[in-house]
Amino acid sequence: MNHFNPHRPNGSDQPTLGITMGCPVGIGPEIILKYFQETGDGSGCIVIGDRGVLEGTAAHLNIDIRCYSWKPGQTLQRSGIAVCEISDLDFKALRWGKPSIETGRAMASSIAKAVELCQQRQIEAVITCPISKEALQAAGYKYPGHTEMLADLTGDESFTMMMAGPKLRLTLVTIHCGFKEILSRLNTETILQRIELTHSSLITDFGLNRPTIAVAGINPHAGENGLIGPEEKTIIAPAVEAARQRGIDAQGPFPADTVFFKAAAGRFDAVVCMYHDQGLIPFKLLHFSDGVNVTIGLSIVRTSVDHGTAYDIAGQGTASVQSLKAAVALAAGIVANRKKKQANDH
Amino acid sequence: MNHFNPHRPNGSDQPTLGITMGCPVGIGPEIILKYFQETGDGSGCIVIGDRGVLEGTAAHLNIDIRCYSWKPGQTLQRSGIAVCEISDLDFKALRWGKPSIETGRAMASSIAKAVELCQQRQIEAVITCPISKEALQAAGYKYPGHTEMLADLTGDESFTMMMAGPKLRLTLVTIHCGFKEILSRLNTETILQRIELTHSSLITDFGLNRPTIAVAGINPHAGENGLIGPEEKTIIAPAVEAARQRGIDAQGPFPADTVFFKAAAGRFDAVVCMYHDQGLIPFKLLHFSDGVNVTIGLSIVRTSVDHGTAYDIAGQGTASVQSLKAAVALAAGIVANRKKKQANDH
Repeated sequence: MNHFNPHRPNGSDQPTLGITMGCPVGIGPEIILKYFQETGDGSGCIVIGDRGVLEGTAAHLNIDIRCYSWKPGQTLQRSGIAVCEISDLDFKALRWGKPSIETGRAMASSIAKAVELCQQRQIEAVITCPISKEALQAAGYKYPGHTEMLADLTGDESFTMMMAGPKLRLTLVTIHCGFKEILSRLNTETILQRIELTHSSLITDFGLNRPTIAVAGINPHAGENGLIGPEEKTIIAPAVEAARQRGIDAQGPFPADTVFFKAAAGRFDAVVCMYHDQGLIPFKLLHFSDGVNVTIGLSIVRTSVDHGTAYDIAGQGTASVQSLKAAVALAAGIVANRKKKQANDH
Repeated sequence: MNHFNPHRPNGSDQPTLGITMGCPVGIGPEIILKYFQETGDGSGCIVIGDRGVLEGTAAHLNIDIRCYSWKPGQTLQRSGIAVCEISDLDFKALRWGKPSIETGRAMASSIAKAVELCQQRQIEAVITCPISKEALQAAGYKYPGHTEMLADLTGDESFTMMMAGPKLRLTLVTIHCGFKEILSRLNTETILQRIELTHSSLITDFGLNRPTIAVAGINPHAGENGLIGPEEKTIIAPAVEAARQRGIDAQGPFPADTVFFKAAAGRFDAVVCMYHDQGLIPFKLLHFSDGVNVTIGLSIVRTSVDHGTAYDIAGQGTASVQSLKAAVALAAGIVANRKKKQANDH
């Protein structure tokens, strides 16, 4: 087994992880500072971002923590924030909650650098702080979002978002489309792909041997055997059946109003949901502050905080570090599980 | 203040409540027996149903409890189950989980008798055990469900279902329609009516002075200011505005994935939801066994258990009494709140 910890002092076998700073004028810098404040050495994390912004934010919020520049190959110091610098913004010229073309470019560079560091095996996972999609696009990056940019950089084609918390894990078949378009976007092929991605990730990333996956219906009472609506029979059940034929323990479609209770009670390892709110309503109810967004199907390990740039509270010192802590912990867990599996497979 | 307790011994000022037996071959008789077993005298409840079925079920499940016949005007005995008899089914000829025209008629008669007893002020509230819609219709009653039958008998025209639990209360704008039909059934007028019914009930039934009502959006992120979908702006917001103009503290539309967390944390007294699963997913997650279904807008007080006839487990002795207990407690609470309000209004 390759312990892969080129940068850790003391011979630690903890992985080295990279945290992207996200939008420099959002809450990313603040939660990173708080994370290092709580953990001391950042538990083996490198920040990929703007050192001046981190130092400026620390001074602004009266957080006493030292930053130092880190370059690929260097050993991490025993305390302080290792920053892989990708920009040199003028902190005094920035305004909280007001992104610019410059902050958008810095934000994008930090994502690109993180992928590069992963591919160079300088870091083993990326934890991303929130970005502004508008600022990303204004800076000339034509991606609909964070995940698509990452997938483009890694060249991965089959990937999706998983929401993961201590009680509930789920994936979504349709995501940010209007309610009106949900049904027309649902098809057996996509549902099957989501079931397969979920299944692979539960084995590879979460270390489960034979995961059980629940698939949610879309009509009330999962259509009540076709009486309320046909889509369970015509679209969803065939995907469940196809997955089962491929050896996946997929079950359903189940009525959405009870499947999450059962999953949270341990009956299922993950739920494949048909639309955004079907999954996010129960997820945020159970995991409002400790939920993590994992991109599954990528060659690199990537987790993300479960919240946005929060421009309305940026610079105020009130942002919660909980989701970042959970995202770092989950990334480290996935790295460990992937290594264990790799070792077992050999 | 009129204490209205014509039947209680010991001068108790607790209300007298009626429990309908529901489908005789479902779990209704069993949970009623368990309820009286736990409470001894049934805390002032009268069962409207079939005495032979209750006695037969008690013998079958080895539950040692006595039933006696009760007629309007009679005082309740200190223990045992007071049964207002509406049928005389042959228990030995019944089969668990297999409703017939006779059981359907008995089921319907118990509902009709309960309304009559309310109107005669013999009881102050009705708690209904689950019925089978198919059996109701097979017995010649052309109602889509329980609630419509009750509303027809009371002559009330503006009513709806509220799901109520210790942490969350909610009403639904569309209920048992297919997912495909949800958007076409949403309109400003119905949303406004639901907000108004919810508001009145929170004041009259739940004793709140100035309730705050959250209205959920329908698109992911409540449409993100129109970017993801238009219905928040075109349909929902006008209803919220109209309600506010009528003096109701309605707020929203809010993103559905966070509004229930906020409501459960105490920020809102109820949430008006756009469709069945939007409300039932968070409700069942928080209140799987202590949720109650209240029909608001009726002249009589009616609560219902939050589960079905459960034909698959009928007669096995494994049904949970939790929801019935919660439904009785809530009905008693609503009766007390209505009396308090009536006294204050005079």
